[in-house]
Amino acid sequence: MDQYDYDLVVIGSGPSGQKAAVQGAKAGKKVAVVDKRDFVGGVCVNTGTIPSKTLREAVLYLSGYRERNIYGASYRVKEHITMDDLQIRCNHVMRHEMDVIQHQLARNGIDLINGIGEFEDMHTLRVHTLGNERTISAENIIIAVGTTPARTNTVPFLPDKVMTSDMIMQMQSIPRSLCVIGAGVIGIEYASIYAALGVRVTVVDMSPTLLRFVDDELISALIYHLRQNRVTVRLGEKVESVKIDEETGRVVTILQSGKRIVTEKALYSIGRQGNTARLNLEKIGIEPDKRGRLLVNDYYQTELPHVYAVGDVIGFPSLASTSMEQGRLASAHAFNLPTNSYSDLFPYGIYTIPEISMVGKTEEELTDAGIPYEVGKAHYREISRGQIIGDDVGMLKIIFGLTDRKVLGVHIIGEGAAELVHIGQAVMAFGGTVDYFVNTVFNYPTLAEAYKVAALDGINRLSL
Amino acid sequence: MDQYDYDLVVIGSGPSGQKAAVQGAKAGKKVAVVDKRDFVGGVCVNTGTIPSKTLREAVLYLSGYRERNIYGASYRVKEHITMDDLQIRCNHVMRHEMDVIQHQLARNGIDLINGIGEFEDMHTLRVHTLGNERTISAENIIIAVGTTPARTNTVPFLPDKVMTSDMIMQMQSIPRSLCVIGAGVIGIEYASIYAALGVRVTVVDMSPTLLRFVDDELISALIYHLRQNRVTVRLGEKVESVKIDEETGRVVTILQSGKRIVTEKALYSIGRQGNTARLNLEKIGIEPDKRGRLLVNDYYQTELPHVYAVGDVIGFPSLASTSMEQGRLASAHAFNLPTNSYSDLFPYGIYTIPEISMVGKTEEELTDAGIPYEVGKAHYREISRGQIIGDDVGMLKIIFGLTDRKVLGVHIIGEGAAELVHIGQAVMAFGGTVDYFVNTVFNYPTLAEAYKVAALDGINRLSL
Repeated sequence: MDQYDYDLVVIGSGPSGQKAAVQGAKAGKKVAVVDKRDFVGGVCVNTGTIPSKTLREAVLYLSGYRERNIYGASYRVKEHITMDDLQIRCNHVMRHEMDVIQHQLARNGIDLINGIGEFEDMHTLRVHTLGNERTISAENIIIAVGTTPARTNTVPFLPDKVMTSDMIMQMQSIPRSLCVIGAGVIGIEYASIYAALGVRVTVVDMSPTLLRFVDDELISALIYHLRQNRVTVRLGEKVESVKIDEETGRVVTILQSGKRIVTEKALYSIGRQGNTARLNLEKIGIEPDKRGRLLVNDYYQTELPHVYAVGDVIGFPSLASTSMEQGRLASAHAFNLPTNSYSDLFPYGIYTIPEISMVGKTEEELTDAGIPYEVGKAHYREISRGQIIGDDVGMLKIIFGLTDRKVLGVHIIGEGAAELVHIGQAVMAFGGTVDYFVNTVFNYPTLAEAYKVAALDGINRLSL
Repeated sequence: MDQYDYDLVVIGSGPSGQKAAVQGAKAGKKVAVVDKRDFVGGVCVNTGTIPSKTLREAVLYLSGYRERNIYGASYRVKEHITMDDLQIRCNHVMRHEMDVIQHQLARNGIDLINGIGEFEDMHTLRVHTLGNERTISAENIIIAVGTTPARTNTVPFLPDKVMTSDMIMQMQSIPRSLCVIGAGVIGIEYASIYAALGVRVTVVDMSPTLLRFVDDELISALIYHLRQNRVTVRLGEKVESVKIDEETGRVVTILQSGKRIVTEKALYSIGRQGNTARLNLEKIGIEPDKRGRLLVNDYYQTELPHVYAVGDVIGFPSLASTSMEQGRLASAHAFNLPTNSYSDLFPYGIYTIPEISMVGKTEEELTDAGIPYEVGKAHYREISRGQIIGDDVGMLKIIFGLTDRKVLGVHIIGEGAAELVHIGQAVMAFGGTVDYFVNTVFNYPTLAEAYKVAALDGINRLSL
C-alpha cells in the first residue's frame, strides 16, 4: 500500500466526496480530497442546494407567505424585497458551510489539495492550480466531480437576464416576470420560490407531466398551488429559441407551437452536464456518456474496479442526501468495510413551495407491479397544527399493503414534508404496518398527527 | 343493554372525552357527550393548549424571534405588537377547532348534550343547563371533566392584572413586566413566550429544579436561553403573598426570603384542581383526592368498574396527546375491544421557546435503574438546516444501551423538537438500535439529520 501517496483520493468536495473521504479516514486510511479552494462543498454549497434552500427560507419569511392565510393575502413582512435582502442570508449560510466542511476534513486528517485533478495514469492524478502543478498517486480514486448546468446555442445566456441555475443567485434585482425553461426539480423549485415573491412566472417543459417520479396526486396539488400563485404552466411545449428584444430588453421565449412568452428575465434549467471533460478519462480508458456522465455498477465502481464514481456525475436522483450515501458506500466498498443501507428507503425532498417529500413506492409503481394496496390520507387543515400554522395545502398520504397492511410508501406535500417523511421511513425500515400510527401517541398539536389521521382514514376504507 | 339510554356517556368534550366517545361510536355503540355548548373542546381548545400554542406561533412570527440570528437581535416584524394582533389568530384557530370537534361528533352519530352533568345514581346522570334539566342513563360512564387552575386566598386575582392561565388570553395589553408564579409546564411556556415578545419576565418556583421529568441537560439549556431573553429565574423560593400597590397599580410579589418582585402583571400557575366538585360523586361513593383528582387503575377504571376517568382529572402528565390515548383505551376497555398501545413511548412536548420534546428514558432514570448507556449529541448549528433557519440553540441527544445499542431515549431542544421526536419514537417502538440512524439516508438539508450526527457522535464515544 505504501507504493501510493494515498489510500484514497477523492476528486470533488461536494456532499458525496466529503462523505467518501470521511468514511475512508474513519477507517484509518490516508485520504486526500482534490478541489478548488474557493469551491469547497461543490455545487451543493456554492450554487445549488444550500443557496436555493436558504433563498427559499428567506422568501418564505420576508414575503410572509406562511402567514397569508392568517393575516390576509397581501400581507408581507417587507414591502420591497431586494436581492440583497435575500443574498445576505445566503452568504452567511454558505460561508458557514464551507467552514464546517474544511474543519471536518481537517479534523479527520484528510488533506485538501487545492486545484483541478486530471488522470495521468490508472493510479496517478495531476493537480494543477494557476501556475502550480503536482502529481499524487492513490490506490483508490473516487470521482465526485458533480455536474454543471447544460447550455444550448439557441439560448443567448447573459448575466442577470438569461441565466442558468448557477447564475441565478447573482441576479441583481427581482424581476416582475420570469420564464423558467425546464421544469425538473431545480426549475420547479425556483419557479415556486419566485412565484411566492410575487413574480409572474411562466414554466415551460417538453414533458407532458411534471417530475414523473413523484406521486400523481401530489403533482396535481403542486400545479394547482403554483397556479394559485399566478404561475403559468406550459407542459408538452418545446422551446424553439430564446431572444432578447433589442428595443425593450425583454426576454422572448419562442415555442415550437408558435407561442411567445415575454418576460423580464429567464432561467434555463434543462439538463446538467457531468464535469468529466477535464478529468482526462481517456488516459484510463473510461468514456463518459454524451452528457458527461459515468456508468457505475451496484458498488459505484466504473469499468476499473479501483475507480469509483458517486454523486450527481452518475445521474438520478442527484440529491445531496443520496449522494452522501453513495460516497459512504463507495468508500466502504473500496476498503472492504461492512455497511448496511436501506437503499429502498431513500427519501426524496423537493423544496418547492409547498414542499414535497416521499419515501417508498408511489401508487403508479405499485399498480404497474400488480401489488394491491390501500391509501389513507390526511389534510393538514383537519389537524390542529395545520390550523395553527395556517397551512391549507398540506396533505399526507400513506400507502399500505391490502392484506399485510405493511407501509409501502409515504407521500407528503406541505410545510415540514421533508422532515415528517422520516417518521414513515423508520416504520417502513422495520417492516411496520399502518396500525403503528393508530397505536402510537403523537405530540399534540403537531403535523405528525397527520400520520394517525391518515392511518385511520386508510383502515376505515378497508371496511367501507 | 337496552335498559340504558346509552352504551356510553362521556362527561367532558376535551381531547380525552372526544377520543373516548369516537372509539365507542366506531364500535357501533350508542354514545353521548355531555358538556356546555360554549365549552366544546374543553380547556384544550378554549383556554389551554390551542390558544397558548397559537399565541406562541404568532409571537414567534410577529416578534421575528426565529430570524434574529440572521437579521439582527432588534429585528421584529411588527414594531408595536398588541394583544389584538395575537388574539386574532387565536380566535380563528379556536373557532375552527370547535367546528371540527362538533362535526366529528355529529359524523360519528354521537349526541352532544348541552349542560353540566352530575350523578344521580350508579348509571344515571342529571344534565342541567340554565332553566333546563334532563336525566340520562348509561351502561358505562367516562369522566373526562378536566381541571381548572387552582387559586389561593393569599393572591388577589384580578382580570388583566393578577391572572390564572385561564384569564391570560383575555389580557388587554402586553405588559412591560410579568411575574410568573409557578414554573410548571404552563408557567414556563408562558414565561418563555412573553419573554420572546420583549416582556421582562420573572419566574418564581418553590422547587429547586424546573420540570423534573425532563433531561437535566435540556433544562440547563432552557434556563440559559430564558436568561438570554432577560428572564429572571428564582428557583427554591416560596411566594408569601401577592399584593397590588394602590398608588402605582403594580403587582408586588413578596417571597418568604423577603425579596419583592414588582411587575406590571402576574400569572399565577401553581397547580390545577380537578373539576369533580359538581359531579355529585358522593352519590356513587367515589371520593376524589383533595385536589379534586380521581384515582384509576391501569384500565382507567375508578373504584366502580363501569365508571372510568381519563385526561387531566387523573393527573400527570396532563397532556392533550396522552389524554386522547387514555380516552381511547378506556372506551376500548369498556367494550372489550382489542387495543395495542406503546405506553412506554408516550412523547412529551413542551412548547417553550425553545421547544422541548422527549421520548423514552432520561439519563437520570437510567442511572437510577443501573442501566449502562452511552449518549450521542448533535447541535443544530452543526447541520445545514440549523444554519439555514439560524437556530443556535437546538440540540438532539440520543441515549442508547451500552451493549445492545438499542435506543432508550431521545431528547430534543430547539425548533421542531415536538415533530422530530417521532422519528426516534418509531425506531424505539420497533426495538431499533442507534445504528439505524447511521445507515439511513435523511433528506438534505433537514433538522432530522441531527439524528445521524448524534448517532455517529455516540458510536464514536464507544471507542474513545
